[in-house]
Amino acid sequence: MIKTDMLIIGAGPTGLFAVFEAGLLKLKCHLIDALPQPGGQCSEIYPKKPIYDIPGFPEVLAGDLVNNLMEQIKPFEPGFTLGERAETIEKLEDGSFVVITSRGTKHNAPVVVIAGGLGSFEPRKPPITNIANYEDKGVAYIIREPEFYRGKKVVIAGGGDSALDWSIFLSDIAEEVTLVHRRNDFRGALDSVEKVSELSKIGKINLVTEAEVVGLQGEDHLESVVIRHKGEASDEEIKETDYFIPLFGLSPKLGPIANWGLEIEKNAIKVDNSYDYQTNIPGIYAIGDVNTYRGKLKLILCGFHEAAIMCQSAYQRIFPDKKYVMKYTTVSGVNGFDGSKKEAKREVVKSIN
Amino acid sequence: MIKTDMLIIGAGPTGLFAVFEAGLLKLKCHLIDALPQPGGQCSEIYPKKPIYDIPGFPEVLAGDLVNNLMEQIKPFEPGFTLGERAETIEKLEDGSFVVITSRGTKHNAPVVVIAGGLGSFEPRKPPITNIANYEDKGVAYIIREPEFYRGKKVVIAGGGDSALDWSIFLSDIAEEVTLVHRRNDFRGALDSVEKVSELSKIGKINLVTEAEVVGLQGEDHLESVVIRHKGEASDEEIKETDYFIPLFGLSPKLGPIANWGLEIEKNAIKVDNSYDYQTNIPGIYAIGDVNTYRGKLKLILCGFHEAAIMCQSAYQRIFPDKKYVMKYTTVSGVNGFDGSKKEAKREVVKSIN
Ligand SMILES: Cc1cc2nc3c(=O)[nH]c(=O)nc-3n(C[C@H](O)[C@H](O)[C@H](O)COP(=O)(O)OP(=O)(O)OC[C@H]3O[C@@H](n4cnc5c(N)ncnc54)[C@H](O)[C@@H]3O)c2cc1C
Ligand SMILES: Cc1cc2nc3c(=O)[nH]c(=O)nc-3n(C[C@H](O)[C@H](O)[C@H](O)COP(=O)(O)OP(=O)(O)OC[C@H]3O[C@@H](n4cnc5c(N)ncnc54)[C@H](O)[C@@H]3O)c2cc1C
Repeated sequence: MIKTDMLIIGAGPTGLFAVFEAGLLKLKCHLIDALPQPGGQCSEIYPKKPIYDIPGFPEVLAGDLVNNLMEQIKPFEPGFTLGERAETIEKLEDGSFVVITSRGTKHNAPVVVIAGGLGSFEPRKPPITNIANYEDKGVAYIIREPEFYRGKKVVIAGGGDSALDWSIFLSDIAEEVTLVHRRNDFRGALDSVEKVSELSKIGKINLVTEAEVVGLQGEDHLESVVIRHKGEASDEEIKETDYFIPLFGLSPKLGPIANWGLEIEKNAIKVDNSYDYQTNIPGIYAIGDVNTYRGKLKLILCGFHEAAIMCQSAYQRIFPDKKYVMKYTTVSGVNGFDGSKKEAKREVVKSIN
Repeated sequence: MIKTDMLIIGAGPTGLFAVFEAGLLKLKCHLIDALPQPGGQCSEIYPKKPIYDIPGFPEVLAGDLVNNLMEQIKPFEPGFTLGERAETIEKLEDGSFVVITSRGTKHNAPVVVIAGGLGSFEPRKPPITNIANYEDKGVAYIIREPEFYRGKKVVIAGGGDSALDWSIFLSDIAEEVTLVHRRNDFRGALDSVEKVSELSKIGKINLVTEAEVVGLQGEDHLESVVIRHKGEASDEEIKETDYFIPLFGLSPKLGPIANWGLEIEKNAIKVDNSYDYQTNIPGIYAIGDVNTYRGKLKLILCGFHEAAIMCQSAYQRIFPDKKYVMKYTTVSGVNGFDGSKKEAKREVVKSIN
């Protein structure tokens, strides 16, 4: 069982910054995210696009913002459970909570903070009837560890950046990479499209366009896929492969959290914005895109504020008898749990005679 | 009369960022500040010190944060009335407000946003009985325009960074610079203290320590100051000078705003934090350090959030019939009033055959 002071569900920008604010109060954090990497929408949907309304940044790439936040929270040594979805929550007699993930990992903390954004990102699956039978047996929707595919035959489906980028990447690792796409048009960064075109010409990527994977075959494990050309049932081929990876994007779903007894409105969690962003269940807070209140704006900068305010209330819940006096970071510095210390240079007092 | 959509009192980080959020809604802003430069506490008190809790900046100098904000709001061409204090407010029949400053400058806008921080910065004045008689007639508490002192005799008083830095700066411009300080100890950046020591040795600064200016003399304009040594009334000298500039720091005072009929609590303005940070007077908002509500944190990042939320409500007040749909800057870009346009590169759609 992983134990921490503050368990944060969702490692998007809001959840990440909450680690910093908690750290200033000497609270330790652990984050759970369904995605294999931190950063939420910023990392998953638009890492290479600029954001213009982060205060103090006339322009910052979403991916760089996430990197900066990771750097900022480093002194507070957050724990991560990545690639797992928080499924259930239970309240213990001592008032603390136990959260269990899709892979059975257990977490225990006196305070739970839901920073789940638009929900946990779930892959869009192609409509192949028996696909569920092959999940983790040859079918994957996310590439967690590219090395896993070394020397294997891989069929990727999709026409966007993920499909393009992973086809390029795996072309050096896998024995054979086939990229199947419904159209001739690809939607992605120009250099990725051109690179795939090149690799296809020299035979390093087997490009099959105007085609779809419509069937999966194999005993215990995937052995081959059925590729249909130009939508004609009469024009199908069977292609041997070890893996089939449809990369049709991820779409967020509030998911299991919707059944935790929280007050839900417009697919988001109602919180008390007049005070501390707590939900209807004491000890469970909701911050960032996942919450709602009158006038709510789903903006990154709003999640930051909500995180800071929430931490003060969480601190009081954990230490009902202590009184925390807020100190400016400029004045008191940042004392990392790793022993690091950041602080402003002191002014000197010096005599002139 | 200066006319604008949103009149912002206080050009600290909160007021500055409000210009950006207003600009996204196509609202024009004008800012009033008692200080001669924008940036509020960040510029006036600790421009060269690092802040560690601005989200996305593991470390940023307060002065750099202000520079970044100025750069970020540039496309929205804010107007500035600097070095003047907002004194009075009046509501016109059309529901708009007129705000008049200490120098009589008039401003008119349908929405007034108070982002006044801890108040307008007022100089700490030395206890010399007739000092008020010489204000603007040889006595100044802020140096607005150093060139003004070219070829003049100047007496500066104080032992901190301002006194040190301005003595150094003016030693190249003024005919004669005298720095008077009560002690031998100076409190400031090491290199400033050393530089003053050097300039004193070569006679470019006339350094008088363990001494105080206790009297002012002159007909219409200041002609000389009385300097008392070691607190002994028997040990006084009269020093001829054109200007006396006591630099004992600025301290913020809520000041005239306290009499505008706003609900005040703990020297701050009460606002509705459950919705839009509006005060008890419709059309007047208060954001940043100047406001108060349950759980309020006087942090820069909180002012940013309050600015964003406030702008949505202000927009509705100005355009009751329009419906504004929030758009992400990443998706819609930033359209400056100066004709500039920032936007993310579009994804390409390209065929591979
Ligand atoms: C194209 C695009 C452009 C945008 N442009 C801007 C912009 O210019 N400015 C701006 O301010 N905002 C912008 N946004 C919105 C911004 O990205 C979001 O406001 C921000 O990401 C919200 O952060 P968050 O941490 O609250 O949630 P998210 O970033 O959504 O992160 C939530 C995380 O929680 C995880 N999660 C949810 N439920 C579970 C669960 N049960 N178990 C495990 N993990 C879970 C998800 O996998 C996800 O990683 C944009 C969004 C998009 C898509
Ligand atoms: C030494 C120090 C260290 C700090 N460290 C941190 C930190 O690490 N993190 C953090 O988040 N915060 C920190 N702060 C606090 C931070 O600086 C404030 O929260 C921030 O400046 C508030 O911004 P603001 O725009 O609301 O107000 P201010 O910065 O106070 O600006 C208000 C402006 O309004 C003007 N004004 C007021 N009334 C009038 C009037 N009637 N007419 C004209 N002008 C008027 C003032 O002159 C001033 O320029 C620190 C503060 C200090 C002093």
